Order: sequence, then structure tokens, then C-alpha cells
Amino acid sequence: MGRWEPNARGRLEKAAMELYGEHGFHQTTVTEIAERAGLTERTFFRHFADKKEVLFSGAASLQELLVQAVDDAPEPLAAIDAVGVALEAVAEAMQERRDFAKWRQAIIAANPDLQERELIKLASLGSALAAALRERGVGETAASLAAESGIAAFRVGFERWIGEAGETRTYRQIMKESLKELKAVTSGRTPPTRTPPARTPRGRERPHAHR
Amino acid sequence: MGRWEPNARGRLEKAAMELYGEHGFHQTTVTEIAERAGLTERTFFRHFADKKEVLFSGAASLQELLVQAVDDAPEPLAAIDAVGVALEAVAEAMQERRDFAKWRQAIIAANPDLQERELIKLASLGSALAAALRERGVGETAASLAAESGIAAFRVGFERWIGEAGETRTYRQIMKESLKELKAVTSGRTPPTRTPPARTPRGRERPHAHR
Repeated sequence: MGRWEPNARGRLEKAAMELYGEHGFHQTTVTEIAERAGLTERTFFRHFADKKEVLFSGAASLQELLVQAVDDAPEPLAAIDAVGVALEAVAEAMQERRDFAKWRQAIIAANPDLQERELIKLASLGSALAAALRERGVGETAASLAAESGIAAFRVGFERWIGEAGETRTYRQIMKESLKELKAVTSGRTPPTRTPPARTPRGRERPHAHR
Repeated sequence: MGRWEPNARGRLEKAAMELYGEHGFHQTTVTEIAERAGLTERTFFRHFADKKEVLFSGAASLQELLVQAVDDAPEPLAAIDAVGVALEAVAEAMQERRDFAKWRQAIIAANPDLQERELIKLASLGSALAAALRERGVGETAASLAAESGIAAFRVGFERWIGEAGETRTYRQIMKESLKELKAVTSGRTPPTRTPPARTPRGRERPHAHR
């Protein structure tokens, strides 16, 4: 196993995030990360399978926390509220890693392949959450719907938490708001929408077209 | 552009689905698909960029249909109901392709990399749907939540539509049910859950553990 390095993992993470930010994820090598951290490549590979894993190694413990929180939620509780309790627990655990989360998000946003990996991570979290709900006796469909719409609220809350400069609320508080908004939206208790304005006989103009 | 082949696209699709089912997706070559369809490889590549695109080329028109349906939805309509109208329109359009959808799903289920691609497709549909809602004046967060939870209902409904042997309802009907269930779930109007049974002092036993 080689020598023990005090907080090697944290130093490698920090070095990796800096380099991904400075030179880009794909331009950074493991050699450079190890060098910046003052450690060997061997040490890097004792902690991470590859340079992508620096960004995604947290997913397993996130999932464990989520499932455990659903299991531990008091009964009786509606499925969506068990999801809420679990997502709040995760949000609270993430609070102290806000800077890491922010850097990480910027790196992911800059790389389509990392965005894909992130999508897969969120889908796995959703499946694990649904499975935990089923163990509580929630029906097949209801479990999927509660879990997946909960994950949508989690993702939307996350963006608000790290994205808005003046944001002073904790992720947990934002997460609660986000779930409340999900409930309002799905109940149809949102201001009615209007149809988009400009139309031509052959379809409508889209001055600012999105893909 | 070469010779025009009557319904070449349909023949290629059919041949590809057969071969993916018989030999597996990764084991099938474009040469074999063209041969089975009685066409040339040249013709294949006039219709599809690669063998993956046989499975995913429908995504663009699905997205267009979805966005158009949101644009055309009557006003005033709550965001989630505009989503419902759009998803029902898509479900209706997919109805006549049930066999294709079923084969396609079996092939995707057998290949993790295709599952990832499918996730990305669904996420893109969700983004396009949210963007269309924003054009109707729906707020940033509400648009994402309505679109993403709607896509969850769409996915869950799809599985029920193609998955259950005795299912005689149309996808549109199932889609409506699925959205109704989403509303019930997020409002907390579902039977309360119970905590999982077996626990030990060190945590709980999981006789049928899921990953």
C-alpha cells in the first residue's frame, strides 16, 4: 500500500480542481495533479481510479446517505415527504463542501462528457431513492415518480445554491423551498402561462432560438 | 445522392432491429444491416450516421413535436397542464410505433451505453420543454420542475405502456394517468409509507439488497 500521506486525498482533490480550472479537464494529466499536490502518481491511484473519479467519487456516499435517510424517516410519512427528508439530509451534508461543489460544477459545465456522467449519477441516485421507497411499501409507479421529481427539485435547488451570488440561505433551506415549489407546480397552483407572441402563417418566429 | 429506394429507411430500421435482437447491438455491423435490408451500405449512410442513430434518430422530431405542442397549448394554462398537453401529443404520435418502441426498449435495456444515451435524450427533451415553458412566461425554476417531473411521468408511463402484457390502454391514456399520479404523489395524497422492518443494532439487514 505504500506510505501513508496525511490528508493525501484532500490535497489531490484540491490540486485536481485547480488544474481542471486553469487548463481544462481534458488537458490535465494525473502526473500534473500528483506533482501539484506534492505526491506521487502511485498515491493518486491509491485514492482515485482516474482523473474523472476526483469529480464523481462522492456519488456513492451521497447515495448511501440518501437511502439511509429514507430508511430512517419516521412513519407514517407520505412518499414525497420521505424523499424530502432524505434530500434535506444530503443537502445538509453537502453544505460544508460548497466551494468544492462550485468548482466541480464549473468544470462539469465546461465538458459535455462530464455533463453526461453527471446525468447518469443523478439517474442512479433516483433509482436508489425509488428502491428505498419501495422497501417502505410505496407502489412501483409512485416510488419512481416521487424519487425522480424529488431529484429534479434537488438539481434545481443545487443550481440556485451554488449559482446565485447573493444567496445566503443554506442548501437545506433552498432544498425545502424547491420541494415546496415542486408541489405548487404539479398541483397547477402557478400563475397561468400565456402562449408565445410572434406567429407567422407557416409557424412562429423564434428570434432567440434554442436548440 | 444515388438511386432512390422506396421506403429504404423503413427497411433499414426493420433489418437493424431484427439483427440487434438476434445478435446483440454491438455484434451487428452496418454491412449486415444493409445486406438484410437488401440495400447497400451507401444507402444506409444516406439515412443514418451510424448504427446507434437507427435507435435515436426519432429524438429530434419528438422534441419538435413537444415544443410545438407547448407553443400551441391554449391559454391560460398552468405550466404542468401545458406539459401534460404536450406529452399527450407525443404519446399519441408514438402510438402507431408501439412494436418499434418495444423492440427498441429491449435493445436499450441490454446495453448500458445505450441506456446512457437514452438518459441524455430524455434530459434534452426536458431542457427543450422547460425552454418552451419559459417562452410562455413560466419562471425559471417552475419551468424546470414542471418539465422534469413531466418527463418522469412520461418515462414511467412509457414503461407501463410497452411493459405490461395485458395493457390495452393507449399511451395517451396511460400518460394522462401517469400525470395524475404525479400530482397525487407530490401533493402527498398517497398512502403513508412504513419504515422497513428488520433492523439490527448496527443497521438494518437487507435480505434482498439492491445496489
